[in-house]
Amino acid sequence: MIENQFTELLKMKYPIIQAPMAGGITTNSLVSAVSNNGGLGMIGAGYMGPEQLKNQVRELKTQTKIFGVNLFVPNDFLLVENKMKTANKALETVLAKFNLEKNVALPTKESFSENYFEQIKVVAEEKVPVCSFTFGVPTKVIIDELKEEGIFVIGTATTVEEAIHIEQLGMDAVVAQGYEAGGHRGNFLQTNQRSIGVMSLVPQIVDHVSIPVIAAGGIMDGRGLAASLCLGAEAVQMGTAFLTTTESGANQVHKEAVLEAAEQEIVETRAFSGKYAQGIRNTFIDAMTEYEKDLPDFPIQNALTQPMRKAAAIHKDKEYMSLWSGQSPRLAKNQTVKKLIEDTMREAGEMIK
Amino acid sequence: MIENQFTELLKMKYPIIQAPMAGGITTNSLVSAVSNNGGLGMIGAGYMGPEQLKNQVRELKTQTKIFGVNLFVPNDFLLVENKMKTANKALETVLAKFNLEKNVALPTKESFSENYFEQIKVVAEEKVPVCSFTFGVPTKVIIDELKEEGIFVIGTATTVEEAIHIEQLGMDAVVAQGYEAGGHRGNFLQTNQRSIGVMSLVPQIVDHVSIPVIAAGGIMDGRGLAASLCLGAEAVQMGTAFLTTTESGANQVHKEAVLEAAEQEIVETRAFSGKYAQGIRNTFIDAMTEYEKDLPDFPIQNALTQPMRKAAAIHKDKEYMSLWSGQSPRLAKNQTVKKLIEDTMREAGEMIK
Repeated sequence: MIENQFTELLKMKYPIIQAPMAGGITTNSLVSAVSNNGGLGMIGAGYMGPEQLKNQVRELKTQTKIFGVNLFVPNDFLLVENKMKTANKALETVLAKFNLEKNVALPTKESFSENYFEQIKVVAEEKVPVCSFTFGVPTKVIIDELKEEGIFVIGTATTVEEAIHIEQLGMDAVVAQGYEAGGHRGNFLQTNQRSIGVMSLVPQIVDHVSIPVIAAGGIMDGRGLAASLCLGAEAVQMGTAFLTTTESGANQVHKEAVLEAAEQEIVETRAFSGKYAQGIRNTFIDAMTEYEKDLPDFPIQNALTQPMRKAAAIHKDKEYMSLWSGQSPRLAKNQTVKKLIEDTMREAGEMIK
Repeated sequence: MIENQFTELLKMKYPIIQAPMAGGITTNSLVSAVSNNGGLGMIGAGYMGPEQLKNQVRELKTQTKIFGVNLFVPNDFLLVENKMKTANKALETVLAKFNLEKNVALPTKESFSENYFEQIKVVAEEKVPVCSFTFGVPTKVIIDELKEEGIFVIGTATTVEEAIHIEQLGMDAVVAQGYEAGGHRGNFLQTNQRSIGVMSLVPQIVDHVSIPVIAAGGIMDGRGLAASLCLGAEAVQMGTAFLTTTESGANQVHKEAVLEAAEQEIVETRAFSGKYAQGIRNTFIDAMTEYEKDLPDFPIQNALTQPMRKAAAIHKDKEYMSLWSGQSPRLAKNQTVKKLIEDTMREAGEMIK
């Protein structure tokens, strides 16, 4: 089960993908270490400008042959006055705490879309080997264009319906993102859709599509890899497990918070970005609970909290940082990428045929 | 991995436990079919009186050697006037729809506890081979008493902390009940605890206890069994998969609803019983959404909705029945217990060492 259609297609040694965590975690040090140790390293490019992305990709090409880029598909959003008022009220105390201005430049639908199209252009021109998408699906035109460049295109689904949609659009593989996954939820067909656990999501998706399924959510070691392959996945996407590695660009405070966390502390919140994401509960999340349902949509809320998150990171104040983590923080280790991948493969190999 | 400490202890052929679904599903026809085909059949006795339980156990003993009984550990609850008012208001329309009286006999803390102690007495006197508990843990005195009778005692945990607690009390094994599981959540140390997905819950519990861990939630076939054993579980507890078998005592309407459901329709609600439970979304659940947080606790709300659930079952009206289901309804099949167990074992055997 370890060598399959997916690893063959991508000429990968191992069916392990490093999740494209956005926000500075997926440095070339991390991405190249994953790819050079038999996995697939991915740049979490959602928040990047085209120039920054192009520079990282060009540098990365000198370090490894296979890698991928993940992009956020822009969602529709409205600037709702009441929600802005709620956000301003909710954030007042914390902005004052860090001596920050209330006014930040807000993204517009146009700027958001424009950046996305420019990112796509970079991916196509640079012939990035793999491109995955979250928060939605690209148009058929974009998918076809990328595929014409020989790019392997991956979608992200949180339900069977979304996976079928991704296959019908002609994408090459689908990430089945389960409830256990850290960071942002990739749901797009229904905004209020409840998350489905990996144990249920993966086999139900596998039964309904013929493209390779990549399991994501809570997978941290050989046990998780072996379990995912048994469920019918052809690869796994691991985020939190790579976040705490030596090569990861995650803030040290974030790494330590994950290494010390228990599964009971992992909560889902839209307080940081306007979109539901999973991470370690802290003072900011608790303070936002009463406002949570009335905060602006992604990416507005994300822009509003960015100065706070930056300031908190500078002050090493984990109570106001977004400490994304999946539901298995107790399994996280401070180790090299090489050791993580080798141990995972050895352990899985001992269990499955 | 298929033969292990757990199957050896219980002299079971296969590491498959049929989940003790309460409310008439676990007839002796189901329980004996599971046990006689190599698994462990369980009576969901939570709502049973002692006489009813004794009769079922005595009859079952003539049909199979190994089986188990599951009991609900009584929780503390208060009769809160405001919550009763909310419930009465919320239930008014539906009770009228089925021509039902508003007033029902409410359980008291005393009657609830008394029934539990009498159930324990039956289990001990009848030397039921296995006794599992949900919604809490029995006292050390009860655990020791059952163990003295040679009874194998199992607890139910939804977090690592709960599993450690169960081991420390001297129980023999622990069910790790994940987010995907249908029916009632077994959490007891923290009432507001978020559920943890099986992929995350099982290995984290396995790392923290030395008693056998039984995975539960979304497991429906050989893929789920193999995956659970890879995660470190020594057995699985399958509910929804057995609910739709020929031998199951589940209402035909319930069986058909599960067989036709998609994973997106599975929701969590406390509208039926006052305790969070997972099942197929229907008119009643939707109608209760606005009241949900203010409804009385278990077992009061359960008593209040019982006449409605009974009437709905008689009228084959699935919109007002509690259609408990895990998150994998697309994997449910209408088949015999023998076929379910044999296919599950064969499929898992093809995958794992």
